Amino acid sequence: MFLIVASILSSAFCPAGALAGGIDIAAHWMTDLKEGVCLIGFWFNHEHCCWTSNETTFQERDRCPQWKSWAELIAGASEGPFAYAVNYLMYLFWALLFSFLAVTLVRAFAPYACGSGIPEIKTILSGFIIRGYLGKWTLIIKTITLVLAVSSGLSLGKEGPLVHVACCCANILCHLFTKYRKNEAKRREVLSAAAAVGVSVAFGAPIGGVLFSLEEVSYYFPLKTLWRSFFAALVAAFTLRSINPFGNSRLVLFYVEFHAPWHLVELAPFILLGIFGGLWGALFIKANIAWCRTRKTTRLGHYPIIEVLVVTAVTALMAFPNSYTRMSGAELISELFNDCSLLDSSQLCGYKQPSNTSETGVDNSLADRPAGEGLYTALWQLALALIFKMLITVITFGMKVPSGLFIPSMAVGAIAGRLLGVGMEQLAYYNHDWLIFRGWCSPGADCITPGLYAMVGAAACLGGVTRMTVSLVVIMFELTGGLEYIVPLMAATMTSKWVADALGREGIYEAHIRLNGYPFLEPKEEFEHSSLAVDVMRPRRGDPALAVLTQDGMTVGEVETIVESTHYSGFPVVVSQESQRLVGFVLRRDLLISIDNARKRQDGIVSASKVVFTEHTPAQPPEAPPPLRLRGIMDLSPFTVTDHTAMDITVDIFRKLGLRQCLVTHNGRLLGIITKKDILKHMAQIANRDPDSILFN
Amino acid sequence: MFLIVASILSSAFCPAGALAGGIDIAAHWMTDLKEGVCLIGFWFNHEHCCWTSNETTFQERDRCPQWKSWAELIAGASEGPFAYAVNYLMYLFWALLFSFLAVTLVRAFAPYACGSGIPEIKTILSGFIIRGYLGKWTLIIKTITLVLAVSSGLSLGKEGPLVHVACCCANILCHLFTKYRKNEAKRREVLSAAAAVGVSVAFGAPIGGVLFSLEEVSYYFPLKTLWRSFFAALVAAFTLRSINPFGNSRLVLFYVEFHAPWHLVELAPFILLGIFGGLWGALFIKANIAWCRTRKTTRLGHYPIIEVLVVTAVTALMAFPNSYTRMSGAELISELFNDCSLLDSSQLCGYKQPSNTSETGVDNSLADRPAGEGLYTALWQLALALIFKMLITVITFGMKVPSGLFIPSMAVGAIAGRLLGVGMEQLAYYNHDWLIFRGWCSPGADCITPGLYAMVGAAACLGGVTRMTVSLVVIMFELTGGLEYIVPLMAATMTSKWVADALGREGIYEAHIRLNGYPFLEPKEEFEHSSLAVDVMRPRRGDPALAVLTQDGMTVGEVETIVESTHYSGFPVVVSQESQRLVGFVLRRDLLISIDNARKRQDGIVSASKVVFTEHTPAQPPEAPPPLRLRGIMDLSPFTVTDHTAMDITVDIFRKLGLRQCLVTHNGRLLGIITKKDILKHMAQIANRDPDSILFN
Repeated sequence: MFLIVASILSSAFCPAGALAGGIDIAAHWMTDLKEGVCLIGFWFNHEHCCWTSNETTFQERDRCPQWKSWAELIAGASEGPFAYAVNYLMYLFWALLFSFLAVTLVRAFAPYACGSGIPEIKTILSGFIIRGYLGKWTLIIKTITLVLAVSSGLSLGKEGPLVHVACCCANILCHLFTKYRKNEAKRREVLSAAAAVGVSVAFGAPIGGVLFSLEEVSYYFPLKTLWRSFFAALVAAFTLRSINPFGNSRLVLFYVEFHAPWHLVELAPFILLGIFGGLWGALFIKANIAWCRTRKTTRLGHYPIIEVLVVTAVTALMAFPNSYTRMSGAELISELFNDCSLLDSSQLCGYKQPSNTSETGVDNSLADRPAGEGLYTALWQLALALIFKMLITVITFGMKVPSGLFIPSMAVGAIAGRLLGVGMEQLAYYNHDWLIFRGWCSPGADCITPGLYAMVGAAACLGGVTRMTVSLVVIMFELTGGLEYIVPLMAATMTSKWVADALGREGIYEAHIRLNGYPFLEPKEEFEHSSLAVDVMRPRRGDPALAVLTQDGMTVGEVETIVESTHYSGFPVVVSQESQRLVGFVLRRDLLISIDNARKRQDGIVSASKVVFTEHTPAQPPEAPPPLRLRGIMDLSPFTVTDHTAMDITVDIFRKLGLRQCLVTHNGRLLGIITKKDILKHMAQIANRDPDSILFN
Repeated sequence: MFLIVASILSSAFCPAGALAGGIDIAAHWMTDLKEGVCLIGFWFNHEHCCWTSNETTFQERDRCPQWKSWAELIAGASEGPFAYAVNYLMYLFWALLFSFLAVTLVRAFAPYACGSGIPEIKTILSGFIIRGYLGKWTLIIKTITLVLAVSSGLSLGKEGPLVHVACCCANILCHLFTKYRKNEAKRREVLSAAAAVGVSVAFGAPIGGVLFSLEEVSYYFPLKTLWRSFFAALVAAFTLRSINPFGNSRLVLFYVEFHAPWHLVELAPFILLGIFGGLWGALFIKANIAWCRTRKTTRLGHYPIIEVLVVTAVTALMAFPNSYTRMSGAELISELFNDCSLLDSSQLCGYKQPSNTSETGVDNSLADRPAGEGLYTALWQLALALIFKMLITVITFGMKVPSGLFIPSMAVGAIAGRLLGVGMEQLAYYNHDWLIFRGWCSPGADCITPGLYAMVGAAACLGGVTRMTVSLVVIMFELTGGLEYIVPLMAATMTSKWVADALGREGIYEAHIRLNGYPFLEPKEEFEHSSLAVDVMRPRRGDPALAVLTQDGMTVGEVETIVESTHYSGFPVVVSQESQRLVGFVLRRDLLISIDNARKRQDGIVSASKVVFTEHTPAQPPEAPPPLRLRGIMDLSPFTVTDHTAMDITVDIFRKLGLRQCLVTHNGRLLGIITKKDILKHMAQIANRDPDSILFN
């Protein structure tokens, strides 16, 4: 049995790992295509192009004659304002082309391919069915358009959509096995594992992926799913590693290695980053939801293609002049996380070289140094990039292209963290004798690692937006592999969650679920209201009585009248109208199909035929038409609660057992019914929200 | 709110961390006391004693004049057979003294302090109440006797009992807060966090601890518990670190750092270790359970003190001559995990020194070398230690002293792994040209790390015994901090679990739960039998009808007769005997107390008084005594299922909602009752076990 599951999981998640690798490679190539082309083969990206040429040194590894920028190719000039303008225009052209293709493909073939997909997967795992959301068209189009969207330079990431892609893979593979095709619950377990796989391949963090699935995505996570998710996440991560898209044979997206330990005093700036992350997270959610609501309710929503093109144009125009916004989000984060070594040529490492040290003097290579010209320029550019990213991400997330939020959030946090980190470093360098620095910062030694600040900042901002906690810390821990940094990460994430929760209880995914009106019963929130089942159930006091069927007292005609005059999706069956003792529950669909079939195939079923739900057909007068026996379609074990059951217990039952409806009895008599929709409406009312915004299928 | 929880958790788990530190220090000192004493202060352990003397070099760091073995102190001789005999006798004396104290204290003050406590905590978290199991006496006595038991040299570890100690701390602190004292469910959440803390401080692995609690201990693990557990585990780990009991300012118990990567071919020996671990795990469980059953059913169980003394004597007598069994389990594992460097003086690193390399030549220091005399001796001793540990652990676990299973299991696996690792290493050294080695083993280079094999073996054996999977891999991952070794660990753990599951489905903790007859409804096992609620409920067909009360038709005397003539802990209340429509459920205890109080305090309550459960008192003849109104003590929302509900769904409801009983109805009429005991008996019957072995309170 386990071997079968294992083989399903591995065959399902090898493709997910392979797809992730393919997306990485394609996106990398197309991102570089915006800047230029490789003469020895247009299919090489910038880095690969220059690998093939042996002339380059390590220092100049991204400059080689084979790689031509568009200005060199078209205008023949590599410098000067004209060349710059050509490059600028070509960058804009490609960005618009890619985003136009992305939004057109999404609209034409698979409308479900847009967005990150995580809110919808959360909803699906909670029991809601969205047909086609995990189908093959969504998979194909989302994979293609994800590459296009990432390459267009928009402020979005590929991590969230990868979760959706992995879930599509899993769902399609489930259809091949009867056991999973027929059993919705088992399929959901596989989907939970798929969510783990998505994050595992996105970051190269299998354990973090499993915890992400557990903490953020899954609704019901039995223990065997834990083990299977872990297995699947590892298989996928190793598939990805064998494809080696980052070209460094590392599993992880941002590999970092820090040399200096952190000091207890540094917790203060880390907590500051946490506060920043929390504030930004909460404000981002409010702004983004407000923008998305505007899109939904005004005419803006009717022109998604124009919207995407305008946002792409603005992004490209603003991003090109600043090297930190021009590079892709992942590259930016990678650079910000990086610890400077003496040989580093990046602007961020533009410290003044210590004059008395030769390049081979390894002793001093990691010591603190004063900031130089290059670093000051970098800081300015980073500050501008921070403001730009913070604003543009608000209007980007939620457009009709695949868009993840992990990378933009982390980028914002990493920039803020790096700025603070460099600030702290310079403060410590110039003020070694301050009391707080005296303990661990001596001249000529390394005491503050700005890259660590960037990492902590990234975690804080991502935590503020998504409200992830343990999984976030574990993902970051897997990136660095050092237990040493758990406490800074933890402190920042915790602060960020507290600050953000104080400003608004929902994470971005819950906020989008509510915006879209999906019927999602939040498993984390406690229901703390003293209402009883009788207050929530239908019919309310004064409403007409509940539409019920009796087990042997109604004719086919009467049943049809009840079914047609109401829109309920199911009807309780009682012993008799007088006793109201509950027998079972019949679904509207089953009832209609059965009556329809019986009228067609069974002799003598007319409107006057008795409908019988009992085990034995009651005696009938001889001239009566033959009865229609429907016990087979009745659910004999409907869930019931009494009218005095407290709503917090009822909500708990709905959550834990994944119910869609529950009947309410009083002293053994049927009194009413509570559906998931009733509960969601009741909760919306308590929270002073509009109860009619909730969808239901 | 969160701040309150956080402060409770941190104040609860700081003591746990501090206790763990204290236990480490005390056990270390007492273990050394068996061998000798420090002249400059008897309270120094061997290592600390020699730290204070400045004469020692790094090589000879555990030999210094201040530390005297008992032979030196008593007989004045440090060598020779007489000195050996004196040391042997003193070792035996201290071992017997410690174990005698341990077992006597346990028996005299806190019988619950024995064993590992994990089976009981699992049962408590599933809803069973064992009074005093988490009380202050258990805490005090378990802490003291744990030190004694570990120091006595018995084949047991302190990791499992630390989980119990942490849970006691948490439980006692819960009593200080009304919110937690009154709410059983909330207290269980804190206990889940405490289990995480226990493992966190035992291994210095906070993430592993949380996953251990999730995978192995907890019954119901809501998401907010995940986050709180993680917080608590980190606080405790940092408290422990600040106490620094291992003297290396590392968080982890076994710090390892490997230099060589592993090769895909090595998966074969790793899987072999997994098979060994699985086999040993399954056989150990069978043997240990058989031994414990013998103890329970024969006269052996009447002499726990003699049993402990005999086992201690045997252990001490057999362990002393072999240096690998004489050292403590944790030290042994630490040594086995260790990678040999050229300077290492340990016997396990007794390789032949390459003749042409000076000691400063760092190039060659880690290359493969042929095994020397020392290593061969070590291998022999290890093989003997393996057999000894495998046998003695079977009879040790389950004695009336605190005893954990983690360290002995890991020791067995680590020995087996190291043996295999050295074997592989020598095979590779002498056969570089074999096809399988040619790829990655060249002469003069390091290609096989025996320490890694030891680690994989330890994981495999622990996995076989406990059936942990993800948490085990994560604990091991936290010890090494390298993602590189996840796949070997994973492969071994998975194989081990499969092999062990094939031989017997239960882990050691489940087996002990069943041995003790605790009412524990296994959350992992699927109930795959097609019985219905009607088949399991009481009364069975032919039994007398269910004892029910009517809502307004019975007198106090009649109710008392029913209560006295039965032993049920609760009674359903129905509208009338004829209708059998369910109104509510009353607990026996509440009923007795209420009637008793009414008779004492309320005027006119006599046996002929009506007992009324309705909202409004029905009209009564004027001469009747005043009625006794008991609606207040009735549970108005008892859980019900219909008689046609499938048992797998019923079991699921019991598990997820943590029920103790559930009423069964048919067409709105009360038919019977299902208790947790009925379900456990039914499951035992299906599995052909004795259904009467199940305890219930």
